[in-house]
Amino acid sequence: MRAILLRRAASAARVDVLLYTQSFARTGEILSSSLLHVKQMHARCICFAESAVKVPHASVTPSVHAGNLAHYKCTRSYASDTDAYLSLVRPLSSNKLSSIGFHRVGIPILGVDSPEIWTHHKDLRPCQAILDEVSAKVEPSVILIDGKLIAERIKQEVAEEVARVKSQTAGKVPGLAMVLVGLREDAKTYVWSKKKACKEVGIESFEENLPEDSSEEEVVNVVGKFNDDPSVHGILVQLPLPKHINEERVLAAVNVEKDVDGFHPLNIGKLAMQGRSPLFVPCTPRGCIELLLRSNIDIKGKHAVVIGRSNIVGTPAAMLLQQHQATVSVVHSYTPNPAEITNRADIVIAAAGVAHLVRGDWIKPGAVVIDVGINLIEDPSAKKGYRLVGDVCFKEAVTKASAITPVPGGVGPMTIAMLLCNTLESAKRAFGISDQ
Amino acid sequence: MRAILLRRAASAARVDVLLYTQSFARTGEILSSSLLHVKQMHARCICFAESAVKVPHASVTPSVHAGNLAHYKCTRSYASDTDAYLSLVRPLSSNKLSSIGFHRVGIPILGVDSPEIWTHHKDLRPCQAILDEVSAKVEPSVILIDGKLIAERIKQEVAEEVARVKSQTAGKVPGLAMVLVGLREDAKTYVWSKKKACKEVGIESFEENLPEDSSEEEVVNVVGKFNDDPSVHGILVQLPLPKHINEERVLAAVNVEKDVDGFHPLNIGKLAMQGRSPLFVPCTPRGCIELLLRSNIDIKGKHAVVIGRSNIVGTPAAMLLQQHQATVSVVHSYTPNPAEITNRADIVIAAAGVAHLVRGDWIKPGAVVIDVGINLIEDPSAKKGYRLVGDVCFKEAVTKASAITPVPGGVGPMTIAMLLCNTLESAKRAFGISDQ
Repeated sequence: MRAILLRRAASAARVDVLLYTQSFARTGEILSSSLLHVKQMHARCICFAESAVKVPHASVTPSVHAGNLAHYKCTRSYASDTDAYLSLVRPLSSNKLSSIGFHRVGIPILGVDSPEIWTHHKDLRPCQAILDEVSAKVEPSVILIDGKLIAERIKQEVAEEVARVKSQTAGKVPGLAMVLVGLREDAKTYVWSKKKACKEVGIESFEENLPEDSSEEEVVNVVGKFNDDPSVHGILVQLPLPKHINEERVLAAVNVEKDVDGFHPLNIGKLAMQGRSPLFVPCTPRGCIELLLRSNIDIKGKHAVVIGRSNIVGTPAAMLLQQHQATVSVVHSYTPNPAEITNRADIVIAAAGVAHLVRGDWIKPGAVVIDVGINLIEDPSAKKGYRLVGDVCFKEAVTKASAITPVPGGVGPMTIAMLLCNTLESAKRAFGISDQ
Repeated sequence: MRAILLRRAASAARVDVLLYTQSFARTGEILSSSLLHVKQMHARCICFAESAVKVPHASVTPSVHAGNLAHYKCTRSYASDTDAYLSLVRPLSSNKLSSIGFHRVGIPILGVDSPEIWTHHKDLRPCQAILDEVSAKVEPSVILIDGKLIAERIKQEVAEEVARVKSQTAGKVPGLAMVLVGLREDAKTYVWSKKKACKEVGIESFEENLPEDSSEEEVVNVVGKFNDDPSVHGILVQLPLPKHINEERVLAAVNVEKDVDGFHPLNIGKLAMQGRSPLFVPCTPRGCIELLLRSNIDIKGKHAVVIGRSNIVGTPAAMLLQQHQATVSVVHSYTPNPAEITNRADIVIAAAGVAHLVRGDWIKPGAVVIDVGINLIEDPSAKKGYRLVGDVCFKEAVTKASAITPVPGGVGPMTIAMLLCNTLESAKRAFGISDQ
């Protein structure tokens, strides 16, 4: 399992130096990290922490942290595939980095983009709910936000709107193209479920399966073909790509008008800014806000805490909440008092990628809890030997919250529904069809 | 004065419908707003609140709020230049907007981008410091962050680095181009002070003065000329532009590699994201962080509150603080309890554009206060009849803070210093010169 995750992490980001942190000596400044994989010096460096690993999922890429460490050059030689220990200051101070052979070459104003390591925030008390939370009794006063049901309703709305588009364009429908490189089973599963959802709502789906050993040029050409194809309104490149392919270049090749994932920095920038509208809002955070809006939960003037600051969930979720006039605080792995800060929130969006990080005492009585986490934990009693749990200890939180999403069946089903919405909106823009 | 501000606001954003809010009946939901200027229906709508107006300044554009109201179409006819009263729900709920003739046509997920109105957060107790804060006694234990001194040091560093660049490129120096349309006196003053700063550090400055009645094409052509000029590494378009010119189009014409203002959504997006580096960080927020860094104020793990969420200061400042591992909360005009939230902050960046908004009791003992505000208030005793004050009531805050910036002489001088840094860094990228 760990080997697979590491391989994925490595291939996801074309790393040359991979720092893998498994365990930490103590919760203080210094952590003892194992240097796992060093192939080349003067190379891009990536930190990878197992504790923050998310289960591969349509909406979640591995928690690889390719950061401003790119601004560091390593001038010391490390043996390849060694497990030599490397003392790593957290966050990597310039002095310490320098002492281990990394020298800063970048823009100091940006600070060091360090790995997100939540372990020392984890409560060691066992969460009683681990194995029985599905059967946890929910107080009648608590609203269980049913993501599955809401996603189904949205799909129905999309289906109706697709039919309207079709009738107004003499038969044209929105089109979603998926680019898949290699033969990874899980990626195929995601593509399959997206294709199925497209079919359900009348969106045409296109799929291009390229062999694992395709060149970067070939992948870019396929993207270009879909860019030029007027029947395609959204393009998804299934990540991660094989290691020999530059992911950033392939993603940059996607026409921003077809970037239905909404991850393009231009879309993120416009989402952050007032007076600008992004073409697409990333699917998972959009799903979180839709859950709030459709559950009639007031956002304006509320204090919202977002736990986690990933590019694909935490950061855009915070931007969206602020757009809806919430006062937003973003808690991350460097927050010394995440429980205290979260405890002030009227709305909590948990997107740290750490199983059961958020305990009952993090939740203010009456708060609304949206749990984005999809974490795999071992469960010998389960058929597959593992099961999915959220970032929130559901059984504890449900005794405090006024509304909460379950895992699974909360945010999860919303991601594909939002992808359908983004594709539909893109098609309507292309066809020049306005809202009713 | 008000007329000038309104004219500027209108020309800054090519408005067709301008909602001007002057006074508010009470601090509740409903405010009574005067409809000032309606030229055309089915038009772009902009809200403008006098209370949030900033003094025109090199680093501060008028607080015009061109928002998602663009997603609303007005279907009712209003008389032109009428002062008819319009009841406006704040924030403009769909129902209320609909009742006054505005119908939503946009992307619901983004929420309404409402005007930033701070009035009801203002403490009505007179700030004793209004007229004597410059002479306020500063406790010896309080660090007065001297922006003027730090800016001078930075300019010296830039001058040394420019000399190094020059020696390594056989005489080439960084170049900054300024595009000025029309004859506004204040704009000329800003351009003059930027040119003077360039000269001091050895950066070559270019200036193109176009007549007020220049066509959009002519302005874009001038920008294009500077884009193509290899001796120009940064381009500034002095805002606001005359009303007949589409500001967004002109700004979009600036090559992102020469966008030394850092306002391009691509740069803002990359600043917000982990693992990406913007080419430029906007000057004023960069100045705030430099003040903290150079005053040896620890940011990592601290709770920072940013007051205000403008595109040019608040939003990028929050992103930068988070990059430096602060836990960031953004307080804005919809925050019901700004004093309470700000009172939890170890670091406060005040960028609301409201004179003396932040009172002593907003500040936690020992907090660090960075005051970005540059507000004009009437002062009959002053030569010009007015004087500049910050967003923070200095005399009150100085009794609580451990470190604080004065106004003027705090953040102000940093903006041009950071512009010089951005221009230098751009030139080094263009020349292929790395840091020492």
